[in-house]
Amino acid sequence: MAKATIVWTKIDEAPALATYSLLPIMRAFTKDADVDIELRDISLAGRILAQFPDILPEDKRVPDELAYLGELVWKPEANIMKLPNISASLPQLKEAIKELQEQGYPLPDYPEDPKTEEEKKIKERYDRCVGSVVNPVLRQGNSDRRLAQSVKEYAKKHPHKLRDVAPNSKSHVAYMKEGDFYQNEKSVIIKKDTKIKYVFEDKNGNQQVLKEVEVGQGDVVDGTFMDRKALREYFKEVIDVAKREDILFSVHVKATMMKVSDPVIFGDAIKVYYNDLFEKHGETLEKLGWEPRFGMQDLENRIESLPEEEKEAIKKTIQEIYKKQPRLYMVDSDNGITNLHMPNDVIIDASVPAVIKNGLKGWGPSGEVDDVVLSIPDRSYATMYKEIVEDIKTNGQFDPTKIGTVQNVGLMAMKAEEYGSHDKTFFPPADGKMKVIDEEGNVLIEHCVNEGDIWRSCITKDIAIRDWIKLAINRAKETGYPIVFWLDEYRAHDRNLIEIVKEELPKYDLSDVEWYIKAPEDAMKYTLARFRKGENTISVTGNVLRDYLTDLFPIIEVGTSARSLSIVPLIAGGGLFETGAGGSAPKHVEQFLKEGHLRWDSLGEFLAFVESLKHAYKQLKTLHNKDDKRILILAETLDKAVGKYLDNDKTPKRKVGELDTRGSHFYLALYWAEELANQTEDKELAEKFAKVYADLKENEQKILDEIKAVEGKPAETGGWYHPDDEKTEKLMRPSQTFNQIIDSLLK
Amino acid sequence: MAKATIVWTKIDEAPALATYSLLPIMRAFTKDADVDIELRDISLAGRILAQFPDILPEDKRVPDELAYLGELVWKPEANIMKLPNISASLPQLKEAIKELQEQGYPLPDYPEDPKTEEEKKIKERYDRCVGSVVNPVLRQGNSDRRLAQSVKEYAKKHPHKLRDVAPNSKSHVAYMKEGDFYQNEKSVIIKKDTKIKYVFEDKNGNQQVLKEVEVGQGDVVDGTFMDRKALREYFKEVIDVAKREDILFSVHVKATMMKVSDPVIFGDAIKVYYNDLFEKHGETLEKLGWEPRFGMQDLENRIESLPEEEKEAIKKTIQEIYKKQPRLYMVDSDNGITNLHMPNDVIIDASVPAVIKNGLKGWGPSGEVDDVVLSIPDRSYATMYKEIVEDIKTNGQFDPTKIGTVQNVGLMAMKAEEYGSHDKTFFPPADGKMKVIDEEGNVLIEHCVNEGDIWRSCITKDIAIRDWIKLAINRAKETGYPIVFWLDEYRAHDRNLIEIVKEELPKYDLSDVEWYIKAPEDAMKYTLARFRKGENTISVTGNVLRDYLTDLFPIIEVGTSARSLSIVPLIAGGGLFETGAGGSAPKHVEQFLKEGHLRWDSLGEFLAFVESLKHAYKQLKTLHNKDDKRILILAETLDKAVGKYLDNDKTPKRKVGELDTRGSHFYLALYWAEELANQTEDKELAEKFAKVYADLKENEQKILDEIKAVEGKPAETGGWYHPDDEKTEKLMRPSQTFNQIIDSLLK
Repeated sequence: MAKATIVWTKIDEAPALATYSLLPIMRAFTKDADVDIELRDISLAGRILAQFPDILPEDKRVPDELAYLGELVWKPEANIMKLPNISASLPQLKEAIKELQEQGYPLPDYPEDPKTEEEKKIKERYDRCVGSVVNPVLRQGNSDRRLAQSVKEYAKKHPHKLRDVAPNSKSHVAYMKEGDFYQNEKSVIIKKDTKIKYVFEDKNGNQQVLKEVEVGQGDVVDGTFMDRKALREYFKEVIDVAKREDILFSVHVKATMMKVSDPVIFGDAIKVYYNDLFEKHGETLEKLGWEPRFGMQDLENRIESLPEEEKEAIKKTIQEIYKKQPRLYMVDSDNGITNLHMPNDVIIDASVPAVIKNGLKGWGPSGEVDDVVLSIPDRSYATMYKEIVEDIKTNGQFDPTKIGTVQNVGLMAMKAEEYGSHDKTFFPPADGKMKVIDEEGNVLIEHCVNEGDIWRSCITKDIAIRDWIKLAINRAKETGYPIVFWLDEYRAHDRNLIEIVKEELPKYDLSDVEWYIKAPEDAMKYTLARFRKGENTISVTGNVLRDYLTDLFPIIEVGTSARSLSIVPLIAGGGLFETGAGGSAPKHVEQFLKEGHLRWDSLGEFLAFVESLKHAYKQLKTLHNKDDKRILILAETLDKAVGKYLDNDKTPKRKVGELDTRGSHFYLALYWAEELANQTEDKELAEKFAKVYADLKENEQKILDEIKAVEGKPAETGGWYHPDDEKTEKLMRPSQTFNQIIDSLLK
Repeated sequence: MAKATIVWTKIDEAPALATYSLLPIMRAFTKDADVDIELRDISLAGRILAQFPDILPEDKRVPDELAYLGELVWKPEANIMKLPNISASLPQLKEAIKELQEQGYPLPDYPEDPKTEEEKKIKERYDRCVGSVVNPVLRQGNSDRRLAQSVKEYAKKHPHKLRDVAPNSKSHVAYMKEGDFYQNEKSVIIKKDTKIKYVFEDKNGNQQVLKEVEVGQGDVVDGTFMDRKALREYFKEVIDVAKREDILFSVHVKATMMKVSDPVIFGDAIKVYYNDLFEKHGETLEKLGWEPRFGMQDLENRIESLPEEEKEAIKKTIQEIYKKQPRLYMVDSDNGITNLHMPNDVIIDASVPAVIKNGLKGWGPSGEVDDVVLSIPDRSYATMYKEIVEDIKTNGQFDPTKIGTVQNVGLMAMKAEEYGSHDKTFFPPADGKMKVIDEEGNVLIEHCVNEGDIWRSCITKDIAIRDWIKLAINRAKETGYPIVFWLDEYRAHDRNLIEIVKEELPKYDLSDVEWYIKAPEDAMKYTLARFRKGENTISVTGNVLRDYLTDLFPIIEVGTSARSLSIVPLIAGGGLFETGAGGSAPKHVEQFLKEGHLRWDSLGEFLAFVESLKHAYKQLKTLHNKDDKRILILAETLDKAVGKYLDNDKTPKRKVGELDTRGSHFYLALYWAEELANQTEDKELAEKFAKVYADLKENEQKILDEIKAVEGKPAETGGWYHPDDEKTEKLMRPSQTFNQIIDSLLK
């Protein structure tokens, strides 16, 4: 009998703990539908163990499930619930190895400094587990992000606070007038498969190959650069304006993602703002090995090593600078952490919405709230932020009870640079030329650059672009909302994308699709006009705007982007359902281990599972020609149950003794059973779950008491990275009453 | 007994003819109030005669009334009704001299080629009468432009047609990304009175003084340049976009006002669009002495002199270009007149509103209506046009029955360059530097420029700026509308103006004033949001935006800018009330002379007179401490009468036998009398005019018949430039019945 299979990923930390409680519920409720749920281990520990089938004894070997999923995502039957996992740092990796060794897994130590061939190979295997290794394997599709109906409705009923904006607010977005990535961009569509090389050519014609990359026909290759002189002049102008207007100065970049270019841009802001520091103490700074891109915090650390007098001189200069320059936007004014302390502290996609939420205000050095200039140097992305900021100044703060929703279809598949271009970001070592040359020697892109300019290239794959257009059209058809391609005819990269969009569109039936192509600022204007009228719009964007908008609008609409659905419709037809942003919450694990109270909110899992079920329904239909309406009913009733869950505020609370993750799962089950009992499409299901609902309802207090009974004492899971299944399941399913009701469904 | 005196200017052509009929009415109605109306002759003929007191016999001498008014405008009691006059060309001057000679004035001939000292002096005197000589003398103030209540209400009741805009319109404004005047601008506020010189310095340091100018403390001096290479690249990009999008290409400049720079910008569009022409026929074009800034029409004229074969080759190339390049926006598609035919044909302040009225469409080469890209190169002014165009695409066409009004306070006094900077516009003869250097050798402004770049400087006078700020505040207080200074913190000139605004504002009581400073695009956004809600806003702008906005908004609001009030509150406290734009209508005079029908609409005079009366009331109060409410009542009732005049459509009609200027004046008098009779504030006036109204009403048909009786035959005024007063008065006051009623009031 053909069934759909949903893969539930086993991952790390808090969501992994929650899974012990939640997964049985999901399996129990879906038992009668043609859908199976498989657990596949892609936790850090699981990935480590999978590296050593040759070393581990047979009973301790585990399959390489990430590799399995890496193949699955390229099959149409893929349907994966992707929960948050650890992107391991080296210390985390070493901790995990140690824990596994202590559990009796004969793993080798991590060879910090491998000498032998064997050690090198071991290090290589371990290194495969470090950093963000899961997403690049699984995200074989573009991005479909939106708010679930239940979440949106909850926010309309329980609106979060958005501060009013003073009509004469002096806050504004400032971008460069010239010399930015936007202006200098060149872009080509590759005519036939080739290998391109990135070349720097000095004034004497000497060439240096910086990198070689294979590209395919139809791929879009861009090159552009940031003129550093223009950048610093821009910062000077903005700082002058901030000073004259007596408002806060701030810089908003994304140094976490654009990890090569953006710290340098950030550093140039430091260079200009703290100019006197460089003039007076240039030699000392050099001696310290400090570079502006490290941020002021790093400088503060480094000067500790200086003789008292030198240190004090530097501190004094900094204090004098603060008197002279405009006040800085603060990350943490209590602790004196400024915008310029750490390149990663102010992350544009979070920081700009925060300023918007706060009525276009930032925090100043004395903890005061004040107007602020938001420096966002590059016009590629700054203009749309300017548009929304000016819109708010003109039309007032948004009203979450009235606004529509803005969904996003993002070009993300196959890396989809603009993001991820850090391996193709170069700093010309001298004045000269940057060139992109193909195998046949054709110069595809050429720029005259100056030493130190930031030159970068992005490659966007043909297949990814076409899939993205298809996804946009599908979303338009599913929703009836207009789709807007945020593409600027006057930007080289976008111009090529527009060409492809126009080539693709006629391949579809567009009779029921309202579509537009608009430059980001115009797209924002159009979208906001609808948004304020309560109308819904789909933004269809590149990878950077995807990232920015999927924070911006959810934060305005429901107060957070964590409650947003994140779906990756896989290119091959499958679906990847990501649950929640914001990591795997180690602090929650600490609390659980210490006092037996877990406060992980599984809302993301609930919402994603609704979509996963809907997708399973479609898969059964298209792949097996099977129309199992029960799956749809399960999805729809779960969606309603989530609405009730939110309305009745059954999310886990912070303190021991209050409702925790396990109790929240009970309520989800209660409401889901209630909804299933109340639906009228499938009588059998209704009857079955009427009984379940009655049992749950009757035992509500008893179940909650049984859960509460295990709180207030340490929880022994038998491992942080690799908990003991039996122990942990017992801890996470403490209510026998609840377990009996659930387990009876599984028989 | 203290009285206010209104000067009614005697001018030329149609409005001068109308004055014979209108002035007696104005005098009659205002007879009982403490206001006199004086006629002062500043017509071309009058100005000519005033030049020769030494030559003319005593009985033919006339006083120099323009000189008189030139002094009067600097006195607080000035109150001048300025009607449209001739800015004489040389042929017009010579015609006028001839006419005066024939009338018996012993004037010398115009010495084309003066030899003797005496001839030179005569030519000098005559030359003082050529060109725009009245405005520079009289406009000693900034500009207050707005729609009279009656005109605005008429438009709301009888809305003009604004075409709908398709939501997917591809029309858009395109401006430069870099290298424009906006980006390169530098600006200084002069610290103490000095003489500045404009210097070009070549690569070897050789300096050439291009001009010297006296400037005073507080004056704002700017310098900036247009990078011609960047300009041409920009045109190339826009042309490519127009082609790819298959929309019309257009360029919008103001070659009439920016007479040195803008034809060159226009010429660069020609260079890029017709590039093949220059490549194939460069030598021929040079031989013809043709330059692109002359326009394609001029080229068409010049090639007529070529041998047939060469001529045909050029024509063929042009036709091939049209096949290859995007279609051009047409000025007159019937006659093949393109946007690029004449630099003066497409005048931005008229052409952009025309496109807006037309639903963001232009006319193409085959007479088709299509989307159009509006190239407006310089970001100083283009961004606000972009904002309104995108606003219309997003929010739909404006509805004249619902929109508010946008008034303007424009910085115009004492030349107030940005405009009028053509005497300080230079084309560097080679690569080098442009410098502005003061008497003490300080380099105030310096730019590295390339040969052929357009470098220009503007001077704005301190006193003019401060008066402009005062006027803005006064207007805010009078209306209660918010005032928005359209100034951009990121533009050098504006930054200095902002500094002065911030210095001035605290000198006033602002408790009842809502004020903002916003960059043009943001100011437009703010203004349009109010505009669409039916709210009113005052734009406070520099001279260029004054010119653009006082066309743009009136055209949207009431279909034409000709019906807009144009007031110059004089710096010294007086008022100059300009009546109507669009010249002195020689065609109307021709019709009158031929068939005795005059169709000059005195609406502008009516509206301006309302304001002039209000001003007279204030002057009496402030200068003589006299509170003559009758003047106010006269103003208010006239305003209402004008409303009725519009509502009942009593404007003059085109054809002989229909209502003409004289009949329209009758109706104005009728309605004014009616309103005076109906007002209750002044019984005496009411009683008096109740009788007048009854008389007029009773004789309505008789009066119209008496007027019609003189139509259909030539009217002999005794002169075009210098009509005979007696003859003309008789022609313009043909109804004895009407005359008796009016004249009885004057007794």
